[in-house]
Amino acid sequence: MTKRVYLFREGNATMRDLLGGKGANLAEMSNIGLPVPAGFTVTTEVCTEYYEGGEKLPEGLMDEVRAAVADVEKDMGKKFGDPNNALLLSVRSGSRFSMPGMMDTVLNLGLNAETLAGLEKSSGSSRFVWDSNRRFIMMFSDVVLGVSKHKFEALFGELKKRKGVTQDTDLTAEDLKEASNEFLALVQKERGVGFPSDPWEQLELATEAVFQSWNTDRAKVYRKKERIPDEFGTAVNIQAMVYGNLGDDCGTGVAFTRDPSTGENLLYGEYLMNAQGEDVVAGVRTPVPISQLETQNKAVYDEFVAVCHKLEGHYKDMQDLEFTIEKGRLFMLQCRSGKRTGPAAVNLAVDMVEEGLITKEEAIVRVEAAHLDQLLHPRIDTNYVAENSIKPVTKGLAASPGAAVGKAVFDSDTAQRLANAGEKVLLVREETNPDDVHGMLAAQGILTARGGKTSHAAVVARGFGIPCVAGCESISVDYATRSFDVNGVTVSEGDVISVNGSTGEVFVQELPLIAADVSGSFGTLMGWCDEARTLGVRTNADNPRDSRQALDFGAEGIGLCRTEHMFFEPDRLPVVRDMILAKSDAQRDAALQKLLGVQEDDFAGIFEAMDGKPVTIRLIDPPLHEFLPSHADLLKEVVELRVAVNLTGGEATKALLEEKETMLKTVEGMHEFNPMMGLRGVRLSIILPGLVAMQTRAIMQAACKLQKRGVTVLPEIMIPLVGHVNELKNVQTQLEAVAKAVQEETGVEVAYKFGTMIEIPRAALTADEIAEYAEFFSFGTNDLTQMCFGYSRDDAEGKFLQEYVEQKILPRNPFETIDADGVGELMRIGVEKGRKQRKGLKCGICGEHGGDPESIFLCHKLGLDYVSCSPFRVPIARLAAAQAAIADKS
Amino acid sequence: MTKRVYLFREGNATMRDLLGGKGANLAEMSNIGLPVPAGFTVTTEVCTEYYEGGEKLPEGLMDEVRAAVADVEKDMGKKFGDPNNALLLSVRSGSRFSMPGMMDTVLNLGLNAETLAGLEKSSGSSRFVWDSNRRFIMMFSDVVLGVSKHKFEALFGELKKRKGVTQDTDLTAEDLKEASNEFLALVQKERGVGFPSDPWEQLELATEAVFQSWNTDRAKVYRKKERIPDEFGTAVNIQAMVYGNLGDDCGTGVAFTRDPSTGENLLYGEYLMNAQGEDVVAGVRTPVPISQLETQNKAVYDEFVAVCHKLEGHYKDMQDLEFTIEKGRLFMLQCRSGKRTGPAAVNLAVDMVEEGLITKEEAIVRVEAAHLDQLLHPRIDTNYVAENSIKPVTKGLAASPGAAVGKAVFDSDTAQRLANAGEKVLLVREETNPDDVHGMLAAQGILTARGGKTSHAAVVARGFGIPCVAGCESISVDYATRSFDVNGVTVSEGDVISVNGSTGEVFVQELPLIAADVSGSFGTLMGWCDEARTLGVRTNADNPRDSRQALDFGAEGIGLCRTEHMFFEPDRLPVVRDMILAKSDAQRDAALQKLLGVQEDDFAGIFEAMDGKPVTIRLIDPPLHEFLPSHADLLKEVVELRVAVNLTGGEATKALLEEKETMLKTVEGMHEFNPMMGLRGVRLSIILPGLVAMQTRAIMQAACKLQKRGVTVLPEIMIPLVGHVNELKNVQTQLEAVAKAVQEETGVEVAYKFGTMIEIPRAALTADEIAEYAEFFSFGTNDLTQMCFGYSRDDAEGKFLQEYVEQKILPRNPFETIDADGVGELMRIGVEKGRKQRKGLKCGICGEHGGDPESIFLCHKLGLDYVSCSPFRVPIARLAAAQAAIADKS
Repeated sequence: MTKRVYLFREGNATMRDLLGGKGANLAEMSNIGLPVPAGFTVTTEVCTEYYEGGEKLPEGLMDEVRAAVADVEKDMGKKFGDPNNALLLSVRSGSRFSMPGMMDTVLNLGLNAETLAGLEKSSGSSRFVWDSNRRFIMMFSDVVLGVSKHKFEALFGELKKRKGVTQDTDLTAEDLKEASNEFLALVQKERGVGFPSDPWEQLELATEAVFQSWNTDRAKVYRKKERIPDEFGTAVNIQAMVYGNLGDDCGTGVAFTRDPSTGENLLYGEYLMNAQGEDVVAGVRTPVPISQLETQNKAVYDEFVAVCHKLEGHYKDMQDLEFTIEKGRLFMLQCRSGKRTGPAAVNLAVDMVEEGLITKEEAIVRVEAAHLDQLLHPRIDTNYVAENSIKPVTKGLAASPGAAVGKAVFDSDTAQRLANAGEKVLLVREETNPDDVHGMLAAQGILTARGGKTSHAAVVARGFGIPCVAGCESISVDYATRSFDVNGVTVSEGDVISVNGSTGEVFVQELPLIAADVSGSFGTLMGWCDEARTLGVRTNADNPRDSRQALDFGAEGIGLCRTEHMFFEPDRLPVVRDMILAKSDAQRDAALQKLLGVQEDDFAGIFEAMDGKPVTIRLIDPPLHEFLPSHADLLKEVVELRVAVNLTGGEATKALLEEKETMLKTVEGMHEFNPMMGLRGVRLSIILPGLVAMQTRAIMQAACKLQKRGVTVLPEIMIPLVGHVNELKNVQTQLEAVAKAVQEETGVEVAYKFGTMIEIPRAALTADEIAEYAEFFSFGTNDLTQMCFGYSRDDAEGKFLQEYVEQKILPRNPFETIDADGVGELMRIGVEKGRKQRKGLKCGICGEHGGDPESIFLCHKLGLDYVSCSPFRVPIARLAAAQAAIADKS
Repeated sequence: MTKRVYLFREGNATMRDLLGGKGANLAEMSNIGLPVPAGFTVTTEVCTEYYEGGEKLPEGLMDEVRAAVADVEKDMGKKFGDPNNALLLSVRSGSRFSMPGMMDTVLNLGLNAETLAGLEKSSGSSRFVWDSNRRFIMMFSDVVLGVSKHKFEALFGELKKRKGVTQDTDLTAEDLKEASNEFLALVQKERGVGFPSDPWEQLELATEAVFQSWNTDRAKVYRKKERIPDEFGTAVNIQAMVYGNLGDDCGTGVAFTRDPSTGENLLYGEYLMNAQGEDVVAGVRTPVPISQLETQNKAVYDEFVAVCHKLEGHYKDMQDLEFTIEKGRLFMLQCRSGKRTGPAAVNLAVDMVEEGLITKEEAIVRVEAAHLDQLLHPRIDTNYVAENSIKPVTKGLAASPGAAVGKAVFDSDTAQRLANAGEKVLLVREETNPDDVHGMLAAQGILTARGGKTSHAAVVARGFGIPCVAGCESISVDYATRSFDVNGVTVSEGDVISVNGSTGEVFVQELPLIAADVSGSFGTLMGWCDEARTLGVRTNADNPRDSRQALDFGAEGIGLCRTEHMFFEPDRLPVVRDMILAKSDAQRDAALQKLLGVQEDDFAGIFEAMDGKPVTIRLIDPPLHEFLPSHADLLKEVVELRVAVNLTGGEATKALLEEKETMLKTVEGMHEFNPMMGLRGVRLSIILPGLVAMQTRAIMQAACKLQKRGVTVLPEIMIPLVGHVNELKNVQTQLEAVAKAVQEETGVEVAYKFGTMIEIPRAALTADEIAEYAEFFSFGTNDLTQMCFGYSRDDAEGKFLQEYVEQKILPRNPFETIDADGVGELMRIGVEKGRKQRKGLKCGICGEHGGDPESIFLCHKLGLDYVSCSPFRVPIARLAAAQAAIADKS
């Protein structure tokens, strides 16, 4: 029979899959001699068994649990349920990957009338016993019996009012006993049955409740965002209780071995004396910094520092710790690799290499794409703030770095709804809880009135790289009026505010944001990445500003310059329309001539910025009707004008109607049922060759002009949407002639190339034929994904793709991460056939996937020469490329 | 140096590519001892050289021509340009494949003032010489100098009027001399220069004109339709003239060694005494049947019959011949494999096997898909005609079999325009000429007032399988009023008429048509095909009527039954809309319940018809918005109603507006940018599982019911648009449960299968995974082509595909013939991976390509189990499958 229950001494840190992260680390800490309260773990496999068996605990499980409890009893010298010497237990979840606050915990399990009486006697503190009891009833009822804790909190609030106190600690043992009784009455009323008094029944129900908490909606949302598979399941950790609330020589806290915000090598954390852990984490009381413990209890503080050093040396990583001090004695309740901000992750990794703890390669592998993403977050333009003498309205805790601007909203549903509608919002809450995760993810930033740097809001925000100011106690939130007051100012829902999560500052106006500057450890790490990687990294940029930004981030060239974006600019759109609507060749040529000048300037600016680096320019791609007014709008106007003409018949109206009717007819003539697969890309070039000839001339004129001025220009002219070699042959032949002509006219030679997108399945399948002409390939994985799957991205993402991912029909959205089996297979065929025809053919990727780490791994595996992505993703691509190369070696 | 000119004795029938069909056969006939006037051929390669060299005759060509003319002079004992003993030449085109009437010919070349005088003396017939001369001037001017022959005909018509004659033969030598002079004056006036009198100059210009005629618009149209590559080029045949117009012992004719309409083994043809060949072909005079030659000149007739036998024995095929009788002496001017109607092709092939001339396999290979297509043409419902005592208004020549009904139109441009607009038209002409081909192709049928069975109209119509009644002399066409009179009835443009090309009957009303019945030789040939082929042939049918039709044509099962067609029927559409617009599950279930009943009946009818044969039923495929009103229509209505409400504000109008606004909102909500790649196929089944569950229930209920009644039902339930194995797994699992449930409820077991379409590139690429669940594959090559190429068929065919084929960017429309390199490669991968996973996996194809012979060859090569096509293509598929198997063997 499979072993279902592991005592801490039977496990170790490598057994994370089976015991969960918390269980494995508790075992590891026990085994390296740290003070851990005795306990054991019910494995994650039992969770799977539980769900496969129709949500029933497996037969015989409780027998194994009883045996393990016996072991704990021996260790602790107490007995579970013994009225005279009761062992109390904590029951906590713990999955392979940390899901902070997502799942449920029950503390003080084993209390009932008998054990209460015994404990009251043995502890000598009635107040402690009744405090523990009211906590236990509330938690157990909330987690196991489904009676919301808010109802208990409301009762408790009324009690405090009645007793005329504001702090929990001001309540007497009698008051707390009263609370316990009220709580029990509430359970009886809500559930129609009494509160279970048998400790073993309590334990069984709590174990099951932890398994149940694996599948709450909030846990599912979190796992989806974090890509944690649903089938992993959670373990259940059952452990002897120790108490931070037995008096003033007791306490509890959380700490990081280094600063998780900056990575600085300083003990970082908070604690509360005479409290249970939940008081710290939930942010109900604002805790004090860990450094104060030194003055409060030097012996315990020193012991704790020693534990921290031991753990960091052991795990070779920054640790996130939970501890409790029971009557002056330190107990470690949890350790795990600490979540960190982007800057912290980078600084930590670089520092630890310098400290000799880890290698460069380990440092590279340890930093996550999301860390860098966060590092590159925008910050508030301090010049602007200074010049305009702008002062923050208040300051809270700097809980998650980066700055954010958005409309204040006061609940998560509204935040999500507005964000989905394209609004930038800031979520403002008294405090957050796990039910708020969807709103937090939707928000630009988070502002809370209560809670410390390890409060729910702070931990979640840092994990997701969302700027957060927490514990901003000077703001008073009023959910009823949907507003908050701060220092005499009222901010209503919809008002724009700005927060600086790196300083804690809050502004009641819209501030301009600027990009992060990246240097120091970031530069060091990026340098290591560049040494490690074999894949090139280029950027997608359509203008000199983006080009320069990308260069700053380390781009080695432009992989995709989309020329049509230039056409949408307001000074050009009318000329583009003239070209489309031209009634004669002369009219069309005149419009093209006008565009030639502006395009030449466009390209010159980019070439200048990218001096010496290749610039891949894609010739026009979208269908021309994208440049015309929408059909529905025109139709509405025409119908209305027709009615107007019939009623009043003014000449001006008639003329307008005629004009609109002509435009409507043109738009109708250009209508396509599936424009994605219609007249666009190279097809346009064949039907309307003047347009791409103009573009090629503009590219070459700009290139020749700059080259003459000493700039090294390496244009790569890319023909999109090729599906048959003859399309490329036809267009490339015509454009080669244009390129040659410009060189002859200017007397300058430019090292240009012609190549093609591989974005049509047929192009990949016949890549050998296409490589006869194409001097380079660039995989357009967005279109390739659309056609390989037969998904129109515009439709699929709104209509069914989300459902597909939720139902696990697709492991993920293939527009975010390349589908290796289908799209990747086409890429493999394309690279193989292309290089068979043309040795060493340069192959890159320029879809959005070029900035996705997992997709970059695939590109490395397929032997591409480079990936190209948006400027802000360039560092991430450098990191992922290095990680891929390192993974490849091992 | 490459040899550019071949004397007839230097060539043979195998040199068709180099000498063209006519040249090769003239050489062959010379070499087997038949009476052929001496001559030689300028090769097709020279034509290519001519176009590659910028439309210039290659240097030195005319020297080779002079040498060859010298040889002809020796043979004929005459001299080109000799005033006393002039050799006259014909200059004719001749490409690899026959292009009847498409290219130009010049006869009587070498005439000028001097040779005329000499010929007048030597022939003793002034009339003949001047007749030849006026013909020569007209032809040469028309073909070489670009002066339209219609201008000469007009002059000639005036002359005849002036002379008071109606027949050309009534004109005297003097009259014809007058005509010649008028013609020369016309040339001088039109061209500003005189008519070239140097015979060598005439010869050089005429040779070049023949090359030029390769690239006329009409020739290009013809080649496109017949898929003859533009680069083949034409040869030029230069041959001594012989004369059918030297007097009453002279004549000229065309004949087939068997009846090209029926295949009957009877000499078939027509001739005219004292005429040149063009008189017969052009249909200007109505010729007499060849049989009359026996009475008119038995010796020549007997010699001709002997020649026919010799040629048929030599070529083992029915021959199409041209001959001239000059002063009682027979000359053969052309022989080629004769074009034939579908019935004739089949009868001939079967007869020749029975005569021992050819093998069964040769017979199969010789019959073309188009022949069968024609054989299966509809005919007039004679019962209806008899019951209603309908009489034809007149009768012409039965020139091309099959019946046609349509609106009378009087010119080819109108015919094409109306046909493009979806109208069925009948082209009515005095006579047709090569400029009419586009109108003939667009028409359902053709009716001409003049011309015989070998007239232009008849030959072209038979070639294309278009029903034709020719030479219907009782009709008088008036182009000015766009009408014709026939036996007192006036038919105006737009009036519907019916023609029977198999009998020559013309009806001035719309008659019902019924399908051809196929038996006799057709059955024999089909039997041989079935023996030869390895590929199965199924049909696409959505109802019992089509199923029965297909069974009659030899279908071995249904390869595609589209269930959505059933939903469009007017009694169901409202229920389907109710289902789509349902506001609750209960409403949706009620609609589905209604549909269940009708679908069960649909399937029962088909199963009954297909007793014992597999029936592949595809579950719903199109996006649901296809069942709702169009967005543009609704938008127009809503805007108009809004105005109306503002103006008058009636309650009824308001209510209607509200209703329409709701529908508009629904339609807008369902709008897709690219519906082809949106929410359809299996995606629908996952989002809305009730619909396919209903369909599966209907299939299984029908199957169980019929099975109980003794019918053998073999349903194959096909899930469309699968791109990822999980889609199939998900839906199939649900539907398997439904299928099992129905079997349990009814207590009947049915041998059903679940399978999938392979129509998404990803499905082909991951076919191994998909075959884990799919029990059969059916390639949906229409969608596969759309996605492999990234073409939306609806858009591509209108916007650029035609241009692509014309510009040779694509060899052909990939929606008509499978693209072997791209789509074929996906199919190859699909079959290979699918069968690797599931041994012997049944693979078929159900796109429209299943009825295209070249695509069927590919399917055979890929090892598919069957093709499926529309009922009327089933015999063609059987033939093509047999031809593929035979080609495979050799």
